[in-house]
Amino acid sequence: MRFGVLGTGRVGRVLASRLVELGHEVAMGSRSADNPAAKEWAASVGGGGRSGTFAEAAAFGEVVVNATAGAASLQALQMAGAPNLAGKVLIDVSNPIDPASGLPPTLSVCNTDSLGEQIQRTFPDAMVVKALNTVNADVMVNPGLVPGSHNVFLSGNDERAKARVAEILVDFGWDPADIVDLGDITTARGTEMYLALWLRLWAVKGTGHFNIRVVSPQPG
Amino acid sequence: MRFGVLGTGRVGRVLASRLVELGHEVAMGSRSADNPAAKEWAASVGGGGRSGTFAEAAAFGEVVVNATAGAASLQALQMAGAPNLAGKVLIDVSNPIDPASGLPPTLSVCNTDSLGEQIQRTFPDAMVVKALNTVNADVMVNPGLVPGSHNVFLSGNDERAKARVAEILVDFGWDPADIVDLGDITTARGTEMYLALWLRLWAVKGTGHFNIRVVSPQPG
Repeated sequence: MRFGVLGTGRVGRVLASRLVELGHEVAMGSRSADNPAAKEWAASVGGGGRSGTFAEAAAFGEVVVNATAGAASLQALQMAGAPNLAGKVLIDVSNPIDPASGLPPTLSVCNTDSLGEQIQRTFPDAMVVKALNTVNADVMVNPGLVPGSHNVFLSGNDERAKARVAEILVDFGWDPADIVDLGDITTARGTEMYLALWLRLWAVKGTGHFNIRVVSPQPG
Repeated sequence: MRFGVLGTGRVGRVLASRLVELGHEVAMGSRSADNPAAKEWAASVGGGGRSGTFAEAAAFGEVVVNATAGAASLQALQMAGAPNLAGKVLIDVSNPIDPASGLPPTLSVCNTDSLGEQIQRTFPDAMVVKALNTVNADVMVNPGLVPGSHNVFLSGNDERAKARVAEILVDFGWDPADIVDLGDITTARGTEMYLALWLRLWAVKGTGHFNIRVVSPQPG
């Protein structure tokens, strides 16, 4: 399958590399066509990778991944262009971290709205699925880094889009039983606001290689 | 030991009953001295329970528990009176749910502040420890309702106060290894904002009898 991965940071590179490893063709998109990080990434993965503008990467992908910094996501997606996102699954792995905040950072949107919802409202013809934003990039594509059963969450309005994303997560190594569909895109508030707890757990654990498991008396 | 439990709702009653069951003397406090729910509770638990105003309950307790609704907590604690809280461990189990919001509710404070911090700032002579606000009342006092290992979190500025609260949690049935000290009271933002995810998980699970376990490669 063809993927457009928007964002050349660590999350984008890790996701894009894993998708190439799984046999997909991946275009990494950035603000400019000659972004050094994107070109270096494309060269490093061989034939399965290419680089270009946000618009070129989004046009290339049958599925588009938003791996840009949350504060830049809406602008990056505007540059990608609504027609290049229309009718496509748009996997949003970003968190709306306020770049002007200190450490630990705060969110630029939360509580009564979320970045996932903002993206879906701005691009109504895309099928936005919030996913993977509750774990570190390494864990996103290699859940086995964290032992045993632990969960990943999906938020989105389109059932088929969520099913498609679940298949991709399974290819990454996630156990289907560990994928929790939280409901429509408004549930992205839950996973985005969890960042506040994740950041404190990260400080306590001293590593980003952790995750949470939801434990309940009933299986599932 | 003597406890003052502020709040006559389900959380307050469940906590107060468990404390009596463990052999403590408990005064349940409310807005008025003749609150029917508080009087009924006191009568139901026999000699270990009594009821009174917020101020009477706080004065009675060597340890005070804030189990009032988050939106009413600061006012309830003002009625309890700063002198009755000074030098005492104040366990804050509340969440700042906005009563004017719909379902699922939103928070009245989050992201750049928390109710736990507001309480600590308002009552600087109390030793505020945020705890138990990430689980349902039944699970608070009976963690065995959820199978296996799962976590409870502490936030507070005073190490001895947190150690004292950890002992109480162990009496409730929590495994010491499952008690995670997140750091100072600002980390209450993490556990209070987790409510947004908790509410969505509650909807998915169909029960409040669940919790999260933090899983990482390193033990602990």
